[in-house]
Amino acid sequence: MKILVTGFDPFDGEKINPAIEAVKRLPDTIKNAEIIKLEIPTVFNKCAEIVEKKIAEEKPDYVLNIGQAGGRAAITPERVAININDGRIPDNDGYQPLGEAIRENGDVAYFTQLPIRAEVKAVRDAGLPAEISNTAGTYVCNHIFYQVQYMRVKKFPNIKAGFIHIPFLPEQIVNRPNMPSMSLTDIVRGLTVAITAIVERDGEGDIIAVEGKTH
Amino acid sequence: MKILVTGFDPFDGEKINPAIEAVKRLPDTIKNAEIIKLEIPTVFNKCAEIVEKKIAEEKPDYVLNIGQAGGRAAITPERVAININDGRIPDNDGYQPLGEAIRENGDVAYFTQLPIRAEVKAVRDAGLPAEISNTAGTYVCNHIFYQVQYMRVKKFPNIKAGFIHIPFLPEQIVNRPNMPSMSLTDIVRGLTVAITAIVERDGEGDIIAVEGKTH
Amino acid sequence: MKILVTGFDPFDGEKINPAIEAVKRLPDTIKNAEIIKLEIPTVFNKCAEIVEKKIAEEKPDYVLNIGQAGGRAAITPERVAININDGRIPDNDGYQPLGEAIRENGDVAYFTQLPIRAEVKAVRDAGLPAEISNTAGTYVCNHIFYQVQYMRVKKFPNIKAGFIHIPFLPEQIVNRPNMPSMSLTDIVRGLTVAITAIVERDGEGDIIAVEGKTH
Amino acid sequence: MKILVTGFDPFDGEKINPAIEAVKRLPDTIKNAEIIKLEIPTVFNKCAEIVEKKIAEEKPDYVLNIGQAGGRAAITPERVAININDGRIPDNDGYQPLGEAIRENGDVAYFTQLPIRAEVKAVRDAGLPAEISNTAGTYVCNHIFYQVQYMRVKKFPNIKAGFIHIPFLPEQIVNRPNMPSMSLTDIVRGLTVAITAIVERDGEGDIIAVEGKTH
Repeated sequence: MKILVTGFDPFDGEKINPAIEAVKRLPDTIKNAEIIKLEIPTVFNKCAEIVEKKIAEEKPDYVLNIGQAGGRAAITPERVAININDGRIPDNDGYQPLGEAIRENGDVAYFTQLPIRAEVKAVRDAGLPAEISNTAGTYVCNHIFYQVQYMRVKKFPNIKAGFIHIPFLPEQIVNRPNMPSMSLTDIVRGLTVAITAIVERDGEGDIIAVEGKTH
Repeated sequence: MKILVTGFDPFDGEKINPAIEAVKRLPDTIKNAEIIKLEIPTVFNKCAEIVEKKIAEEKPDYVLNIGQAGGRAAITPERVAININDGRIPDNDGYQPLGEAIRENGDVAYFTQLPIRAEVKAVRDAGLPAEISNTAGTYVCNHIFYQVQYMRVKKFPNIKAGFIHIPFLPEQIVNRPNMPSMSLTDIVRGLTVAITAIVERDGEGDIIAVEGKTH
Repeated sequence: MKILVTGFDPFDGEKINPAIEAVKRLPDTIKNAEIIKLEIPTVFNKCAEIVEKKIAEEKPDYVLNIGQAGGRAAITPERVAININDGRIPDNDGYQPLGEAIRENGDVAYFTQLPIRAEVKAVRDAGLPAEISNTAGTYVCNHIFYQVQYMRVKKFPNIKAGFIHIPFLPEQIVNRPNMPSMSLTDIVRGLTVAITAIVERDGEGDIIAVEGKTH
Repeated sequence: MKILVTGFDPFDGEKINPAIEAVKRLPDTIKNAEIIKLEIPTVFNKCAEIVEKKIAEEKPDYVLNIGQAGGRAAITPERVAININDGRIPDNDGYQPLGEAIRENGDVAYFTQLPIRAEVKAVRDAGLPAEISNTAGTYVCNHIFYQVQYMRVKKFPNIKAGFIHIPFLPEQIVNRPNMPSMSLTDIVRGLTVAITAIVERDGEGDIIAVEGKTH
């Protein structure tokens, strides 16, 4: 089995992005699955072109995109990608879309094919906080999540894909009062057990668990 | 013009739900639009049946569902409804779905037809906090939002519909440290200007504004 | 009985300070107590000179200083004033002390003489959030609280004095995500019932209640 | 030089207390200072008796008490200890004082003798979040901090003493949404550099830095 795991480069004035730092430090093999690691730019569309090319080359069974969610305290697998580009800030190429569709002929949204409840359980069992998130935002994180789902429908029907948001690193918040963070070691450990859960649930779907949100 | 505005009854052990309290106190007319007010139960499916019956009777131009989002500090118009019932807690009839589709033949998600940027701007211009939300959760709030969108596709193509989440009332948080709230007077005022914005933008679509979220 | 209630003018770039706005709107009489209202500048020492002059003139039984605590969700009576000026930002005259004593011959700290548990109970009974705070910070709020206690020891042994911090107004946070606030109406109502509790407990000390903090 | 560092045992239903876990893992020597480690119970008075006995035996130059501050995101050196026992919950022996003095003949408060600004700078320079705190609460943490200051005045005039609060561990918050935490590795690292700063500033007092709080 092959899993393509991507991480974004730094954005929004940060000097580091925990996403790519964590992805680089993942083991090369997790439970017999080969881990292919890819850095992608925090740039609308360009990030998707790079991922698409890599999928064509590597033919992975799974695609997992990792992104920074500054302010979140937990590792948060995402449930759903939505068809909108709406930037609070410009991307790393200076482009700031305001409420446009990602794909004119795409669905309003796609659910992940990944076992997000099992991922959350695995991370918690490893002693780290995790929660299902029902929004990946409207920026480049949601964008790549949506684009890979769109590719799945249009070109690569055999892949299963999803997204995990991770907290800031401690070094990013030394001057930000009351902001949660997670050590890089713990993020790598959390992603590793989440990927382990993905591999273990292969072909079986997700577990059943109480993970809903009232809002 | 006619606008049907619904509010839920109390749930999750609360004695009061700011949603129905605020809806009851809305003016009967806002900018020439007649406001039809409807209390609905915090019960999966049953709430939708009641709304559907009312839509059939009243033939409103707009349907706006209001719900409590305990913990949020702002009035938050919702962007998207997703096809899932996933209860952190049971509904008021004791039913707790865990990850089932709302409608087997429904889309994964529907975007609101309401001008959410204009609503947010109107509330802020009135001196109250507002933000677009990209998740209405996976409980009865998202459920009714989704169900009305589904009705729109299947039965009532002329309605435009959407959802606004509102904070706790101060009286609900007297024993909850660090929990934000909003006074009922301000919630009613905020909803009134948001509805005014909906009426004013009728036929013109939303405004353009920077309201995206990175996650 | 006479109660001197002070409120600060705006600081830190704000256009309004809920403290003086609320003080201005207090009733002139609360439970037979005459309420003397005084605006004071957010300036170290100068604010104390103005209060001292007013105390000499009016000979109040109680002095209650009110200040804005941006970020707090509740009305928070303060327990203790500490002998330090330590400014995160300069005051309104441009002075920014960094860790100096307020009074070289003053105590390290003074406890309030006000019945803070009774104040908290009264505010909650009125349906508004309240908590005892164990720090008034190290800026002008703590400064005036400390200075009045020092005056009490040195010059005006008959007064009883204390401080209440209040949240931002909604209009101050329209562009600050996830920031709690309280309506001016509710702040005025909360302060009024807190002052009522002070009057009612006159000569009896505080009530007994569980209001401690683990940190 | 000798530094006595204490850590509390678990309380409030927790199975672990990061304070004692971190203390146990500190190096035995930091910058030529011998580190004496001591576990103390989360029990009013008893914890002080144990510390007093150890001070008498070991004659340390510094006493540093470490405690858990669940909900804080940063390592927070405390500025001031206040003369009150006010328990939100009972201690580990079932005793819950409600607003009594710790020492009838003690001062209202004592400031730490430790260089808290230098500690904060050292922790931040190590890439971890730190802030000065102006309240150690009213429970056993503030109690031991106050008691050691009282001992200093009454019995051990040569010691310098202080307190540092630390966040929850990740494993303590797996089921607490939006709660910040810090890895044990990072807490140990942060305490080590804070103690290094204490040793390096010995005899020189604190640095000057902007670390005040408006409230």
